[in-house]
Amino acid sequence: MPDMLAIGKHILASQPFSLLIKTEITQFAVGQVELKIPITPELKQQHGFLHGGVLGYAADNALTFAGGSSMAVPVVTSEFKINYVRPAIGEMLIARANTVYVGKTQAVCRCELFVVKDGVEKLCALAQGTIVRISQERS
Amino acid sequence: MPDMLAIGKHILASQPFSLLIKTEITQFAVGQVELKIPITPELKQQHGFLHGGVLGYAADNALTFAGGSSMAVPVVTSEFKINYVRPAIGEMLIARANTVYVGKTQAVCRCELFVVKDGVEKLCALAQGTIVRISQERS
Amino acid sequence: MPDMLAIGKHILASQPFSLLIKTEITQFAVGQVELKIPITPELKQQHGFLHGGVLGYAADNALTFAGGSSMAVPVVTSEFKINYVRPAIGEMLIARANTVYVGKTQAVCRCELFVVKDGVEKLCALAQGTIVRISQERS
Amino acid sequence: MPDMLAIGKHILASQPFSLLIKTEITQFAVGQVELKIPITPELKQQHGFLHGGVLGYAADNALTFAGGSSMAVPVVTSEFKINYVRPAIGEMLIARANTVYVGKTQAVCRCELFVVKDGVEKLCALAQGTIVRISQERS
Repeated sequence: MPDMLAIGKHILASQPFSLLIKTEITQFAVGQVELKIPITPELKQQHGFLHGGVLGYAADNALTFAGGSSMAVPVVTSEFKINYVRPAIGEMLIARANTVYVGKTQAVCRCELFVVKDGVEKLCALAQGTIVRISQERS
Repeated sequence: MPDMLAIGKHILASQPFSLLIKTEITQFAVGQVELKIPITPELKQQHGFLHGGVLGYAADNALTFAGGSSMAVPVVTSEFKINYVRPAIGEMLIARANTVYVGKTQAVCRCELFVVKDGVEKLCALAQGTIVRISQERS
Repeated sequence: MPDMLAIGKHILASQPFSLLIKTEITQFAVGQVELKIPITPELKQQHGFLHGGVLGYAADNALTFAGGSSMAVPVVTSEFKINYVRPAIGEMLIARANTVYVGKTQAVCRCELFVVKDGVEKLCALAQGTIVRISQERS
Repeated sequence: MPDMLAIGKHILASQPFSLLIKTEITQFAVGQVELKIPITPELKQQHGFLHGGVLGYAADNALTFAGGSSMAVPVVTSEFKINYVRPAIGEMLIARANTVYVGKTQAVCRCELFVVKDGVEKLCALAQGTIVRISQERS
């Protein structure tokens, strides 16, 4: 039985951009994943909040991990949408994604993003997207 | 008459995350903006393409610049969606956004993302999103 | 204590388009709603499936009921996205929406759409959208 | 050389739901389409505006016509998002969609929706979505 979390850590470590962001993977199972990103100064925007682009990156990456684990083939994110609901102010961003539907050529996944401040989690964004097999959609 | 591009450069320079990504602003007028991101190794994912999260960041930021310049009040991105259509392989990412609708409390903007390889631009993603006044939606 | 379902039936009955579609509201509480649409021949597309536009309508309407009940002010749907995952073939469409976030000026809601065939529910689409106060965003 | 508009009229006439809505197709070429919907009382919501669900239907259908004509294979809409920017009050709704990207398995299209009042067109919504080959994504 494969150690999913070890596989996830290996994939994440092979993404230079995830190393730059310092993303960690803390849970990984078929159809669900949890990523954590320490909110460091260099990830912020001009008002001192976590930059929306980091939230978008986290959603994109979490959706792809969730969908990819469900489809068990090489995948990419085809598209996603994200709603920001609260400024991300705190120590840590947590992105939790799960697969809602999986078919032969696509998976549809959802992601919730929480900011942790003083140990309390608050929802700051939510996303929904489509994951597809690599060789098919990107031609 | 304000030097919009100088204002844009100032805003971008005040975003630590944009400094980390090394984003440049190359055109800025009311309702339209062009951002450029050199595709360096640290911005890639495990297959050697630009990470989708960088494209999401670029779309988010370009949409906010376009909408903010149209509304002329402090704004944030409320939500956006992005479709990836081609792997971003090349030297440079260009994000061009423009405002399609502007009202008192929101602007709706679109963004096209191109990758430049050997001097040729190719569309690699397109986005659409809502920009809102800061004090209203983020409470 | 208000009879939410009676209020929901009254609102639905005041929407001529919902009467044309023959939508029923079967559950309604603060932040959640269930709508049902009998799949009649006139709601289909050329392959005999329920038309995607009916699913889009059902998602839009369910999101607005959920968000409106959470905000308790007159609202409209500002935007939404929908993923279709399976052709809607069967006797009945069920749309269930709930509010995930509610603030002063917006609510973000999700909707799941199921088709019922031979008594079995199957997920056929899922949506996410933003509901806003009427007077603010539509100017 | 095929008469695209005649083909479009034939497809539209084979969609019972489009007959119920009384949609007309007024322009159709590879990668672009124009649909018109007379705003009759039965298509409205409780405030007298065109129901958002009709706009969603129009966007979905226009996106599918545009993408299908570009791909030249049987297609369905995989997903789309729509932003409503202005209440649709007037005599006629016009939906104009065009294909922005076409690949082997998907097309990404955009749609603008205008309401015509006293002969003047005003933008009331805009959409972006993914069109895919029928046999692949709907399994």
